[in-house]
Amino acid sequence: MSDIKAVTQTHIITADCPSRPGTVDVVTRFLFKQGFYINEIHSFVDTDENHFFIRVEFRADTETEFNRESFCEQFEQRASEFEMQWQLASSPYKSKVVIMVSKHDHCLNDLLYRYRTGDLNIEIPAIISNHPDLEELAKWHGIPYYHLPITKETKPEQEAKVYQIIQDCGADLVILARYMQVLSSEMSKKLSGKAINIHHSLLPGFKGARPYFQAYDRGIKLVGATAHYVSDDLDEGPIISQCVETVDHSYYPQDLAAKGRDIECLTLSRAVRCHIEHRIFLHGNKTVVFAK
Amino acid sequence: MSDIKAVTQTHIITADCPSRPGTVDVVTRFLFKQGFYINEIHSFVDTDENHFFIRVEFRADTETEFNRESFCEQFEQRASEFEMQWQLASSPYKSKVVIMVSKHDHCLNDLLYRYRTGDLNIEIPAIISNHPDLEELAKWHGIPYYHLPITKETKPEQEAKVYQIIQDCGADLVILARYMQVLSSEMSKKLSGKAINIHHSLLPGFKGARPYFQAYDRGIKLVGATAHYVSDDLDEGPIISQCVETVDHSYYPQDLAAKGRDIECLTLSRAVRCHIEHRIFLHGNKTVVFAK
Amino acid sequence: MSDIKAVTQTHIITADCPSRPGTVDVVTRFLFKQGFYINEIHSFVDTDENHFFIRVEFRADTETEFNRESFCEQFEQRASEFEMQWQLASSPYKSKVVIMVSKHDHCLNDLLYRYRTGDLNIEIPAIISNHPDLEELAKWHGIPYYHLPITKETKPEQEAKVYQIIQDCGADLVILARYMQVLSSEMSKKLSGKAINIHHSLLPGFKGARPYFQAYDRGIKLVGATAHYVSDDLDEGPIISQCVETVDHSYYPQDLAAKGRDIECLTLSRAVRCHIEHRIFLHGNKTVVFAK
Amino acid sequence: MSDIKAVTQTHIITADCPSRPGTVDVVTRFLFKQGFYINEIHSFVDTDENHFFIRVEFRADTETEFNRESFCEQFEQRASEFEMQWQLASSPYKSKVVIMVSKHDHCLNDLLYRYRTGDLNIEIPAIISNHPDLEELAKWHGIPYYHLPITKETKPEQEAKVYQIIQDCGADLVILARYMQVLSSEMSKKLSGKAINIHHSLLPGFKGARPYFQAYDRGIKLVGATAHYVSDDLDEGPIISQCVETVDHSYYPQDLAAKGRDIECLTLSRAVRCHIEHRIFLHGNKTVVFAK
Repeated sequence: MSDIKAVTQTHIITADCPSRPGTVDVVTRFLFKQGFYINEIHSFVDTDENHFFIRVEFRADTETEFNRESFCEQFEQRASEFEMQWQLASSPYKSKVVIMVSKHDHCLNDLLYRYRTGDLNIEIPAIISNHPDLEELAKWHGIPYYHLPITKETKPEQEAKVYQIIQDCGADLVILARYMQVLSSEMSKKLSGKAINIHHSLLPGFKGARPYFQAYDRGIKLVGATAHYVSDDLDEGPIISQCVETVDHSYYPQDLAAKGRDIECLTLSRAVRCHIEHRIFLHGNKTVVFAK
Repeated sequence: MSDIKAVTQTHIITADCPSRPGTVDVVTRFLFKQGFYINEIHSFVDTDENHFFIRVEFRADTETEFNRESFCEQFEQRASEFEMQWQLASSPYKSKVVIMVSKHDHCLNDLLYRYRTGDLNIEIPAIISNHPDLEELAKWHGIPYYHLPITKETKPEQEAKVYQIIQDCGADLVILARYMQVLSSEMSKKLSGKAINIHHSLLPGFKGARPYFQAYDRGIKLVGATAHYVSDDLDEGPIISQCVETVDHSYYPQDLAAKGRDIECLTLSRAVRCHIEHRIFLHGNKTVVFAK
Repeated sequence: MSDIKAVTQTHIITADCPSRPGTVDVVTRFLFKQGFYINEIHSFVDTDENHFFIRVEFRADTETEFNRESFCEQFEQRASEFEMQWQLASSPYKSKVVIMVSKHDHCLNDLLYRYRTGDLNIEIPAIISNHPDLEELAKWHGIPYYHLPITKETKPEQEAKVYQIIQDCGADLVILARYMQVLSSEMSKKLSGKAINIHHSLLPGFKGARPYFQAYDRGIKLVGATAHYVSDDLDEGPIISQCVETVDHSYYPQDLAAKGRDIECLTLSRAVRCHIEHRIFLHGNKTVVFAK
Repeated sequence: MSDIKAVTQTHIITADCPSRPGTVDVVTRFLFKQGFYINEIHSFVDTDENHFFIRVEFRADTETEFNRESFCEQFEQRASEFEMQWQLASSPYKSKVVIMVSKHDHCLNDLLYRYRTGDLNIEIPAIISNHPDLEELAKWHGIPYYHLPITKETKPEQEAKVYQIIQDCGADLVILARYMQVLSSEMSKKLSGKAINIHHSLLPGFKGARPYFQAYDRGIKLVGATAHYVSDDLDEGPIISQCVETVDHSYYPQDLAAKGRDIECLTLSRAVRCHIEHRIFLHGNKTVVFAK
């Protein structure tokens, strides 16, 4: 396919660099000179870290055609002066997403529905699981299902296979949709900034296993979920989104889990949406999220 | 004052005991036989602990007069068969509340407003602080203000004075409205089930000091507060109520604190309301709250 | 099947009657005398209407067997003295639910997921639609799909067919899961208290057609949904549950609709859960909902 | 006072104009050329109306001094080419706010607390009421209180006096904090975009008088409040913020009102904060709000 796209195409540029005067102008001047409309712009300066973040949605004027190569080459000239890291995405922005699951299917079901209806603008080239249980669900959606069992001994080998699939798919994002396995340190690093996990508690409360049981024992009055980027440090990855619902004393662990399932689905899909719409910056152990 | 009250008076009986058949009937049969209307009834059985809780609001029929002494004597006969712990409160249910503060005045201001307008049905015989700052606010509301400074050395002595005031007032409840001091183990025990603290995080996340700074460092997307009964184990007391608001990367600790102030006020006043309306049962390290 | 059930069975009795002393005792005394445990009890007196409502979950003692016929006969004797309307449900409480849809599938998909996983304790003997679009979804779940097109002229005939299916199924509940057709006055009356509709606005705001467009034009900052019992008066039926999410100026009608879809699913499933758990009383044009 | 301010000063420029390429660049290029840092930037294009909105927070570089007159003169040259309407505000951004009240004091009390503690960065040169009741509260905060009774006959005269006070104060904003009087069409027009009202329902539901009673009659499950700019068309003004809380059947009108008071305070203070931080654009009958 040629790099020359139709004129109604829209684009998203995301960039960050050390903060100094002119960081906005680098982007906005360039886009103006090239004859683009800006649809939406968000910027943020972290004054503690003295770091600048910007996200711009823009579209070509009717008389302009988009030459990606030329755009990138020219923009890099300006950007490099500011030590700017940047990415350019162009519509239709269809991300390739690999989903990893275990036996719980609520998050998978929710993601597949959003995929099927176009609510999430994604392709799903692969679903990977350490159990065979959810194959039928994958099949009904016409998605290849890889059953890769894991044991303590076979973990390196299994992860190698998983990573191979991710690579072969050209995946932009890996979603751990209740995968229930801790990734190895090596795997976590390889997937840094490209893998989102859903944890079924309001981190940092109730880290580790069986958070709904922990929450029940503590007698909490809010149950929640946390979507975060996978990091080497378990349950300490950069938080993307968190949601809650109220509960009371009458919620046993299975009731918390039932209410939590809805929250997990919403929290995870929001995080995924932000990621595929290029709204998230990974920033040390935190995120900057220009959410809609 | 006589024990005979006007016929439009309402009453609240709260009781708990080991679960077995007939625990509801003990209360409802008695009230029926005595000719009372039941306005509202809540019960709960903790099936893990096999324990029963009940709260009943009732009112005398128009031809009945209320003799508290006789009521209690007769009810105890039935209740004792079931090893039932119970309390009876009669309208106008005006609780005596001692408020303890430090320098932050948002929770105090909120409680005083609710007191002044009757939104919270309380008397405030004393405000106690280790600092003189909030005296003027107390004075404007016509409430005695006790300035009792505290140091590591004078802590036992100061706490003794505090406890004396609480005793002298006949306080039903002590509210630590951002008191910012850890009560001694001895004091915590004395006030067990009678002292509510507001912690400015979603416990068990961010225990201890400066939770808004901890929350900022962790990059959380929800800021919250927790009202709990004071216990010997700091920040581990039984949770009564929890509330949250959404935040994002642009919230520095002072912004979290600003948003948090509103949440602290709401969370604390809800817990206080539940307590003075006899809606809370202390149950090991948890609470049963029959919230409206 | 015999009326004698296993001893671990639980039951729910719901009742309402004019308020007077002894209305609770009617239920609780009877249950005690029959040797039942009460798991949970909720009551409410509408003091404006002077009407009493009660819901009790109870279970047989280990040595007792449950004879439904005998229970009902004996209870009716007491209940009739109080002009009490009452119902008895016994576990496993599996309700028969007919779902009606048009072309939008988000609510249907959500209900089917909850059905499939047992999150909603229901059977779905039929899905009825005026369009053929969602047949495949029904089929995958093994549920009969009735395609009954409707025009202005064929409406009486179509509704007769629909009603026949509902009757034949022995349905306890009909869910209009974005059916997009206004039921006739006659049909509404036949289904009174047995049909739940989801309206995609916070009623009474934005009644009628295209509520997300109306909401957009008005510039609202919260988008919501309302689940209500179907009544003869369009969009005026008794409200069961309402939920919202925050939005801002950047939400065009299609964005409101997208966010609204999640809210519609949650709002509808909550209403359905309350109904099948016998937590709702229809009370004139309102509901009393003893929600968990 | 000189137009030359200290170098640590920050500024906010807000602007809107018909959408076309270069609208962002107009602002960002100018600020860059003048040597300013941009702290935060938000823009939005209403593609239905083809209109552009932008808000930029910026600060002078350490070696630059701020000459307001010169800034405005030069910026206007560029802005006028784009038919841009714009405003410039400079720290400390202290807005002058006149508050109008009747007898309900919860919103006033909340605003005064936020004023007193600096949470809202405002001066309050006057509180105006048609009743004398809240004078003491005003006095304690050292704020002049104008008691201007109103009758059908004296309304034009009273409004003239009110407007005179607003003019004399140089007020930037008028807050109707439960003023309970409908402003005349003339007065509404004079205060267009400068007066915020709090309505105690989720508009457009329950317009007009006694919304909590209307809400009770309708049996709603969410109670809410709406802050909006005053317009000639009662309860139809542009919405700024809306908040809700869940309620159930047990809430009588007075209970809805009690819960509503907290929501009204939060909703109003959020709208006021957005206004004084120059985050709101009035846009026909809607608002664009770049909320934090």
